[in-house]
Amino acid sequence: MKLVTFTDTAGTRIGLAVDSGIVDLKKADPDLPRDMIGLMNQWQAVRGAVERAASRKADLAQSAVKLEAPVQRPGKVLAIGLNYADHIAESGQPTPTEQVWFTKAVTSIHAPFEPVQLPKVSPLLDYEAELVAVIGKRCKHVPKEKAHEVVFGYCAGNDVTVRDWQFKTPQWVLGKSFDTHAPIGPWIVTPDEIGDPHALGIRAFVNGEKRQDSNTKHLVFNVFDQIAHISKAMTLEPGDVIFTGTPGGVGAALKPPTFLKAGDVTRIEIDKIGAIEATVVAEP
Amino acid sequence: MKLVTFTDTAGTRIGLAVDSGIVDLKKADPDLPRDMIGLMNQWQAVRGAVERAASRKADLAQSAVKLEAPVQRPGKVLAIGLNYADHIAESGQPTPTEQVWFTKAVTSIHAPFEPVQLPKVSPLLDYEAELVAVIGKRCKHVPKEKAHEVVFGYCAGNDVTVRDWQFKTPQWVLGKSFDTHAPIGPWIVTPDEIGDPHALGIRAFVNGEKRQDSNTKHLVFNVFDQIAHISKAMTLEPGDVIFTGTPGGVGAALKPPTFLKAGDVTRIEIDKIGAIEATVVAEP
Repeated sequence: MKLVTFTDTAGTRIGLAVDSGIVDLKKADPDLPRDMIGLMNQWQAVRGAVERAASRKADLAQSAVKLEAPVQRPGKVLAIGLNYADHIAESGQPTPTEQVWFTKAVTSIHAPFEPVQLPKVSPLLDYEAELVAVIGKRCKHVPKEKAHEVVFGYCAGNDVTVRDWQFKTPQWVLGKSFDTHAPIGPWIVTPDEIGDPHALGIRAFVNGEKRQDSNTKHLVFNVFDQIAHISKAMTLEPGDVIFTGTPGGVGAALKPPTFLKAGDVTRIEIDKIGAIEATVVAEP
Repeated sequence: MKLVTFTDTAGTRIGLAVDSGIVDLKKADPDLPRDMIGLMNQWQAVRGAVERAASRKADLAQSAVKLEAPVQRPGKVLAIGLNYADHIAESGQPTPTEQVWFTKAVTSIHAPFEPVQLPKVSPLLDYEAELVAVIGKRCKHVPKEKAHEVVFGYCAGNDVTVRDWQFKTPQWVLGKSFDTHAPIGPWIVTPDEIGDPHALGIRAFVNGEKRQDSNTKHLVFNVFDQIAHISKAMTLEPGDVIFTGTPGGVGAALKPPTFLKAGDVTRIEIDKIGAIEATVVAEP
């Protein structure tokens, strides 16, 4: 299933993306939760009803709604750095023996097709295509072999980065946390449709030109390694979002370095998930 | 005023700490919001009613309630490192010319008098006394001279740190984000009672022994510098919490380094605010 959060004139709610459009889960079953984290919290009880809804005819054309970030307000947005061999090489870094974690502010979470802001304070705007895992169960100390059980699903993400702010100090977080700089979507695809999350082609395009082209099989620390590690420190909760790393080909590593400018269109594409796309606009 | 979030058998809600105990804002005015962020969001409209409530007799003894983190679920928990000269010196670091920001996970936010966990995965547990600023208004690009206008109030915080996890990689966030490692409170003191936030004695004690003893006048980047800087990147929202740095005297810098062990009691004290206190317990 492909679970969406969407907005139309009747408000923001959740649904399913099906071939014919969007199934409105409120219409399919008025007793279902109205938001994605609510749905995850009740997943054992409501899963059957959601699966039945997937066979309904669409209530709305996809073009009639605005797709939102599938989780609009995660508790945590965690992200791992230096996690594809080719990106490590282009960054001039040694291969980490420990997982390198940073965070993006929750206020950077952004809808999958909305414009991304070129900040007032920096022109060094860059893209990073990433597979994003969404946590579905409250958990701590999750063994790697059981980590798949706590994943609610996967989406595509752009770990948009302001390079000079990333490297002003050894701590990357400010350069990773500008408003609009964590678009995710277009939907959460449930693990049954993904199969092996470590066998997905992942690509980034800028104005139609392919810049990143890799496969999640090249992750240094895979999704389940990641969940096992961070859950040793902190409780993960339904709706927490994990950016799992970006492959080689970011703008800063091109020769010459090439940053995003207003009017550019970025597209992040992942096999079995789909694509998110954003036009770069000046920060208002 | 001293605003509290508290729990008793009737549930969790907000109130005021007064000399005689706790004023229950629900009893003072049933139309007031029931949680702290709700109160901040309506502050212009409800401030008068809250101020009137401050002259009521207490509804509850302080001993009859559990004080919670004044903001139980911030959107963001931001923290600045290396921000007192003596702590920079003991850390063996050069004085930063740029503000060094990291984050603590929202799941680390913790009640002011509840036990702090000694993690299963590390014995290197440390305390850091910090003045904590709580944002009260949605804002971006706040000039330093106006930054005081977006502060809802101040509390005491312990930036509890797992030192080996902090330094496993150049990114500190995992070592700063363990569950229970961001106790804050005991209340939010409004700026009118604080006066100059850069003239407050700040102290940490372990088992009654004074370990940190400084004054917020020694902050390298003061609270308003901090808000001005981070709001260039991201929108700040009501309830966002800022840990403003710790002075010298952390356990890792003692000779020999001395870490917290189960049974130790930490106390963080700040002038005009009060103290928070926690017993260290093994992670269950």
